[in-house]
Amino acid sequence: MSEKHLAAGDALPAYGGKLRLFAMRFCPYAERSVLVLNAKNLQYDLVFVNLDSKPEWLFEFNPKGSVPALEYEQGKAIFDSAIINTYLDEKYPEVPLQSSDPLRRAQDKVFVELFMGANAAYYAAAFNPNGFLPSHLEAYHKGLELLQKELESRGTKFLHSDEPGLVDYTIFPQLERFESLPLLGKPEMAIEKTKYERLVNYLDAMKNVPAVKQYYLSAETHAKFAESKTKGEANYNMLDTSDACCIRPRKKKQ
Amino acid sequence: MSEKHLAAGDALPAYGGKLRLFAMRFCPYAERSVLVLNAKNLQYDLVFVNLDSKPEWLFEFNPKGSVPALEYEQGKAIFDSAIINTYLDEKYPEVPLQSSDPLRRAQDKVFVELFMGANAAYYAAAFNPNGFLPSHLEAYHKGLELLQKELESRGTKFLHSDEPGLVDYTIFPQLERFESLPLLGKPEMAIEKTKYERLVNYLDAMKNVPAVKQYYLSAETHAKFAESKTKGEANYNMLDTSDACCIRPRKKKQ
Repeated sequence: MSEKHLAAGDALPAYGGKLRLFAMRFCPYAERSVLVLNAKNLQYDLVFVNLDSKPEWLFEFNPKGSVPALEYEQGKAIFDSAIINTYLDEKYPEVPLQSSDPLRRAQDKVFVELFMGANAAYYAAAFNPNGFLPSHLEAYHKGLELLQKELESRGTKFLHSDEPGLVDYTIFPQLERFESLPLLGKPEMAIEKTKYERLVNYLDAMKNVPAVKQYYLSAETHAKFAESKTKGEANYNMLDTSDACCIRPRKKKQ
Repeated sequence: MSEKHLAAGDALPAYGGKLRLFAMRFCPYAERSVLVLNAKNLQYDLVFVNLDSKPEWLFEFNPKGSVPALEYEQGKAIFDSAIINTYLDEKYPEVPLQSSDPLRRAQDKVFVELFMGANAAYYAAAFNPNGFLPSHLEAYHKGLELLQKELESRGTKFLHSDEPGLVDYTIFPQLERFESLPLLGKPEMAIEKTKYERLVNYLDAMKNVPAVKQYYLSAETHAKFAESKTKGEANYNMLDTSDACCIRPRKKKQ
């Protein structure tokens, strides 16, 4: 897998006959679908796109030009992480990631809606520090407290059950990024074990789930990307090693 | 059913043992759930709330304080029209409103996402005329064209099939309101039969669906409500006749 993000003018890679996800390496919404594809043991190709210089063909898969988009059949796609993930879970039922109870499925979605109240605070803190308000900090901790309370009341290792499910894969990408906030000048947004013990244990457990582990990025990496984006020069390819040959010392020709 | 909207300080009506929907008479999102409840022949109570002076108990059912919210069991609720409607359709499968094919269900949701691109134009035109931009008009007609094209390519009377389904009940409340735009000083937003014949026939067919007919409001009524809201005095109770006795001439006491 190349970590290079394709940009305007770049050709669409040849179709490989598998599901294909259009994503951006640092996008939490795209990560939701990556984690679900991993958790369901599906074979897929991943194409990263530069969101500041979008390849023209991205709009053929998603007229809105956002990621994630899933090419489920050559030239045919659906988009939006919630739509994609529900589709994947229903189409490939071998590893079910949702409860069989319609009410619990609805409650999971309601929980995500409420938890996402913390997300505006993350965006302001990471990408628009001058726009950060006291109300953001309040909403952020309200979201974390809600999650901790929900973990306690459900009493299982993950929100879904003792195995992670769609609800966990939906919120984790946000949490992964929240952990970069102390590195971005917001120590008051750290997820402290003293206050959030149950939540910190949950985070540790999620990081050890194979579907997550293979795609997880450290707080340091997320902070670096956020800094580059805030400067107006989002460094999409910071993890790309596909051109690394060029910077290695070359052997002299014999 | 009273059309009166309860406000801060008003008591929560006694629970009647049925599903109960918290709504606002002119809210298109709440209407989505009303139509689905009707289409599925479910028994329910409807409680209208004043969104400019919210009753305190609204937040017990939905911490976000928005409508619709569905009390599915005394004191327990879920919210968000898409979450509620999927729940209702899955919990009460007697009258299924979605395809049995996961891909078609995903495509219906993708279609709604794209169609809703027209909705920002409606809000600007109806409630913020000074904020109306040429790009709004373009997005509006793009949404209508997309719908007409989708109706043509599906070839059925409704989007779902020859019977309306969740996708139809989701977009119709928006269309019902779009028809008020020529009355609000936007003749260029009329849905003209010359350009949108297939779409106008679809609208006529939807208005005759029993689930819609019993809740439908005319373009004139929507325009009146929008005008009151734009003036900053949203007239929530304009359809309420529960106090009508007071304005009828009373008989003299004998």
